[in-house]
Amino acid sequence: MDDYERPLFFHLMEYASDAERDVVGMVSGNPDWEAPEALRDGLREYAGADVDDFQYPPSEGLRELREEIAARRGVDVERVIITNGAGEANYLAMACALKALDGEEILLTDPVYPYYHKRTEMLDATPQFVAANPDGTLDPDAVRAAASDDTAAIVINSPNNPTGGVYGRGTKRELVAIAEAHDALLVSDEVYDHFVYDDGAFASALAFDSERAVVTNAFSKSMAITGFRVGYAIVPEWLMDVVRTRHMLVNVAGSRPGQYAVLKALRETPAEYYERNRQLLDERIDAFCAALDEAGAEYTRPRGSFYVMARFDGYPGTLANTERLIDEAGVAGMPGDAFGESRADWLRFALVTPRADEAADRLAEFFS
Amino acid sequence: MDDYERPLFFHLMEYASDAERDVVGMVSGNPDWEAPEALRDGLREYAGADVDDFQYPPSEGLRELREEIAARRGVDVERVIITNGAGEANYLAMACALKALDGEEILLTDPVYPYYHKRTEMLDATPQFVAANPDGTLDPDAVRAAASDDTAAIVINSPNNPTGGVYGRGTKRELVAIAEAHDALLVSDEVYDHFVYDDGAFASALAFDSERAVVTNAFSKSMAITGFRVGYAIVPEWLMDVVRTRHMLVNVAGSRPGQYAVLKALRETPAEYYERNRQLLDERIDAFCAALDEAGAEYTRPRGSFYVMARFDGYPGTLANTERLIDEAGVAGMPGDAFGESRADWLRFALVTPRADEAADRLAEFFS
Repeated sequence: MDDYERPLFFHLMEYASDAERDVVGMVSGNPDWEAPEALRDGLREYAGADVDDFQYPPSEGLRELREEIAARRGVDVERVIITNGAGEANYLAMACALKALDGEEILLTDPVYPYYHKRTEMLDATPQFVAANPDGTLDPDAVRAAASDDTAAIVINSPNNPTGGVYGRGTKRELVAIAEAHDALLVSDEVYDHFVYDDGAFASALAFDSERAVVTNAFSKSMAITGFRVGYAIVPEWLMDVVRTRHMLVNVAGSRPGQYAVLKALRETPAEYYERNRQLLDERIDAFCAALDEAGAEYTRPRGSFYVMARFDGYPGTLANTERLIDEAGVAGMPGDAFGESRADWLRFALVTPRADEAADRLAEFFS
Repeated sequence: MDDYERPLFFHLMEYASDAERDVVGMVSGNPDWEAPEALRDGLREYAGADVDDFQYPPSEGLRELREEIAARRGVDVERVIITNGAGEANYLAMACALKALDGEEILLTDPVYPYYHKRTEMLDATPQFVAANPDGTLDPDAVRAAASDDTAAIVINSPNNPTGGVYGRGTKRELVAIAEAHDALLVSDEVYDHFVYDDGAFASALAFDSERAVVTNAFSKSMAITGFRVGYAIVPEWLMDVVRTRHMLVNVAGSRPGQYAVLKALRETPAEYYERNRQLLDERIDAFCAALDEAGAEYTRPRGSFYVMARFDGYPGTLANTERLIDEAGVAGMPGDAFGESRADWLRFALVTPRADEAADRLAEFFS
């Protein structure tokens, strides 16, 4: 995996902004809602801090931030490491699974979040794909059939990007058991956990207190700050040394202004902030799906995250078709084939714009 | 390299702060001088930015920051990648040399900055050490003798931590030629380039415009912001794709608040800011070395960086002796043996305190 592929979403966002016509942007997962006010206050406070506070935080992250996370997640603070977003957390978990456990294979789902796949290749591991169900959920039997003692890690994302599927408690329990049976690591990326539209559908892998589960997460989506790069991993105690050694040797430490601001926001932001954004997304999804119905598109209403995949008859999810949709319908999405073969006929739309219903109307008109 | 070693400087800083007596802290390289005012202004500005500006920066870093760096360094902007401090820049250069070039060995100096050594082990490469000269400079003939077609990278640091040595233009030219001859990558960490006390002593590896040289740097020391984690690598064009792919798959992108603040500081901070800090360090070094003379210690006056290594008769640079110095002399340094065998008799003192001369007096008294 030596060749840099300019991220596709970047190309498409540029293509959309270069278009002659007005385009509704639904390409990337960058939130468009407001960040917590306390986060902005935190940055302002930090701007006036003593120069000592501008120096290296502990490699594992600011102690108080780790404590705040540990308390909320009900784990020992020594199991929490702050990372450069969920991206680094997933990288660390995958690399350390390959280092600390037997096996050269990493189990991924199809469709897959492309970073997982490319990271697997970068780490010289063998990706093995398990097909997700049409509604985006995952059948534990399919995972069981694919897992073996060659499996070093099973990487899952629930609520899921791109399908919107949410794996329930039963599924998570079985996935944990499969990882344990094969001495593999379940890497459970839960970055969309604040965006679940179906009460009780979501369960964290933390619930099973397994020695073979790492939970990764970030404040990127829940606080609308993908650019701050503040995430974390909750790691079983025996694996912590391997994880923090790699974190230290790759990054030394994470960036302190972001950690400081997130700490203040985490302490001071009321639950209503998160609930308001969740509702906003829920409403956008409703309106968008209603318009998809009118357009005669096939889709699954997401139970979590904020992406909708749709299939339009005779219009496969290729890059060319995605560009044509920008030019002729004024709607920018992501080609489904970026997420794997199984979604080659689909398009993904990120509901990170107040104009989602307008986009849906345009789609309805274009495909009518 | 699976075992986490709690960084020694962290242990010693804690030991010093737990001591019963007053201790002058000279353990870590955390600047104690003021950060640029424009940097603080940048954070304040950013705190009020549109939420769009809180989202992912380009993976390679904010374009304007890359342009500002490219203009100052006289290179094409496409060769600049913003990293999570010089730490990530060095990690990327080392990992990508092993990936893109033949060879499993990495040439390091002795004494060595411990991160280089541990990173080499993490990357499953073989470290090979070349002894530095007593004054901290490096003899190109010694490097030539150690280099072979098994060499993937030669990692150097000038101005040097811990020795204070500065490699001149002639040395750098020869090191570049050795890297080219063996199809290896010269990784030239120049993070102390603002702290040179000997006009004309320093030359950047950029001067030789080699396809086999990567220059790494950061604003950590020059702007007194080790905790912001804003650094960069200047990479030959042919290697850029490999470097940015790894950067993207490990970290996705760097943290944006820090990049924004550094950009503003880089544009608005006058040259006097850097010169004032350089002079401050120069004066501290003078005073500290004068007191070391009185104490009868052996030392080399650093020509760059801000560390002084000293040897006291019959007092080797062990952890035990470093702790004893904290307890009995009230001065906290780093044991020389942390940097390799060759400096096992030495202690390193970081001049990041206004009380450096007081520390030197205490040492003189303790060893008299």
